[in-house]
Amino acid sequence: MNQDELKALVGKKAVDWVFDNMTVGLGTGSTVKYMVEALAEKIKKEKLSITGVVTSEETAKQATSLGIPLKSVDEVDHIDLTIDGADEISSDFQGIKGGGAALLFEKIVASNSKKNIWIVDQSKLVDNLGKFPLPVEVIPYGSEKVFAKFDSKGLHPTFRLAADGTKLRTDSNNYIIDLHLEQIMNPLKLAEYLKAQVGVVEHGLFLNTVNTVIVGYPSGPKVLEAR
Amino acid sequence: MNQDELKALVGKKAVDWVFDNMTVGLGTGSTVKYMVEALAEKIKKEKLSITGVVTSEETAKQATSLGIPLKSVDEVDHIDLTIDGADEISSDFQGIKGGGAALLFEKIVASNSKKNIWIVDQSKLVDNLGKFPLPVEVIPYGSEKVFAKFDSKGLHPTFRLAADGTKLRTDSNNYIIDLHLEQIMNPLKLAEYLKAQVGVVEHGLFLNTVNTVIVGYPSGPKVLEAR
Repeated sequence: MNQDELKALVGKKAVDWVFDNMTVGLGTGSTVKYMVEALAEKIKKEKLSITGVVTSEETAKQATSLGIPLKSVDEVDHIDLTIDGADEISSDFQGIKGGGAALLFEKIVASNSKKNIWIVDQSKLVDNLGKFPLPVEVIPYGSEKVFAKFDSKGLHPTFRLAADGTKLRTDSNNYIIDLHLEQIMNPLKLAEYLKAQVGVVEHGLFLNTVNTVIVGYPSGPKVLEAR
Repeated sequence: MNQDELKALVGKKAVDWVFDNMTVGLGTGSTVKYMVEALAEKIKKEKLSITGVVTSEETAKQATSLGIPLKSVDEVDHIDLTIDGADEISSDFQGIKGGGAALLFEKIVASNSKKNIWIVDQSKLVDNLGKFPLPVEVIPYGSEKVFAKFDSKGLHPTFRLAADGTKLRTDSNNYIIDLHLEQIMNPLKLAEYLKAQVGVVEHGLFLNTVNTVIVGYPSGPKVLEAR
């Protein structure tokens, strides 16, 4: 099984957690795409009444094209369940997200959800976080100064670029600075430091967020309960 | 002397701190307008080479119309001095800013300045912060949830509205939630709490920021050194 097949596997599996009348947060990314497809099929087949809450324009587009009714996080009373991908999950269930540049809305939706499920292929499970570059969403004005500060602190920053070579803009029109850390010894401390900086909007450390992880192995999906 | 005259008084006084070849951060607001006028006059009269760094589109417009050369905070190596207004200054020199909705760029510029001067009329000096509503800049997506959280915590939030009755948008296209607190007992703790919230970009508590305060009294400007 290749990586895409593992992603499809967990994407399909995740909709087992979706029941009638639920409000479901829909993450962003290549694994989530399979889940959104599977969810649309399940809604049709079982005639479910589901409201989706999106985390990006990308997912909104896909969900709309598949006929899933959508609301914004501000239009719903609560979110029962959010299903999203992750770029790294440590053995103590902390995560890095934001490879798809949607970390801000993903965190807004996750933090307003009663339950969070992450769906990943086996390659995303790590002992310690940090091999995957940690994304930090920053206000463009002053971003060179934030970059220089990160650089002088040894956080190995790079600006994320779009396909055309200019600095990538998020759905909120901000920049992403990726920190190439290799190993994050104290995620909680780093998260606090980053969020406290003037000009930082949000970062990709999702700590004490996930409840259930569905991991794709060639032998099938495996369900891990975080707490 | 009315309030406008006191504002003009300190606006003119503040440019005494500006010398040739300085890079000067230009704040935002009704008091700063007088300072920018006085600065333009001084530059012409004394043939100074000054670079301005602006904190809002509003000030950029005024400074450009008066011929002050401008750069963004990212284009300058450093900022020698920033002159800005304040909405409240406590007896221990902590401040609330953001009445003009420019708090994010003001804080970005202030935090990159070697020296910060605030110019205010006497009405802005208070024993404790909090009578002036504390502005919090928030990402629009999820802002109703942030509002509800503030409300349940007893922080008395209101969305700031534009003249047309819709929610005001900042220069970064965010919303402002004003917190009507009457009295802020522990500004440091509140600042940490606010900045740590998902969806909060920045808040109007400017702590340990100002070096010099110029206060307008009917008898003349008075200079206070913070530390």
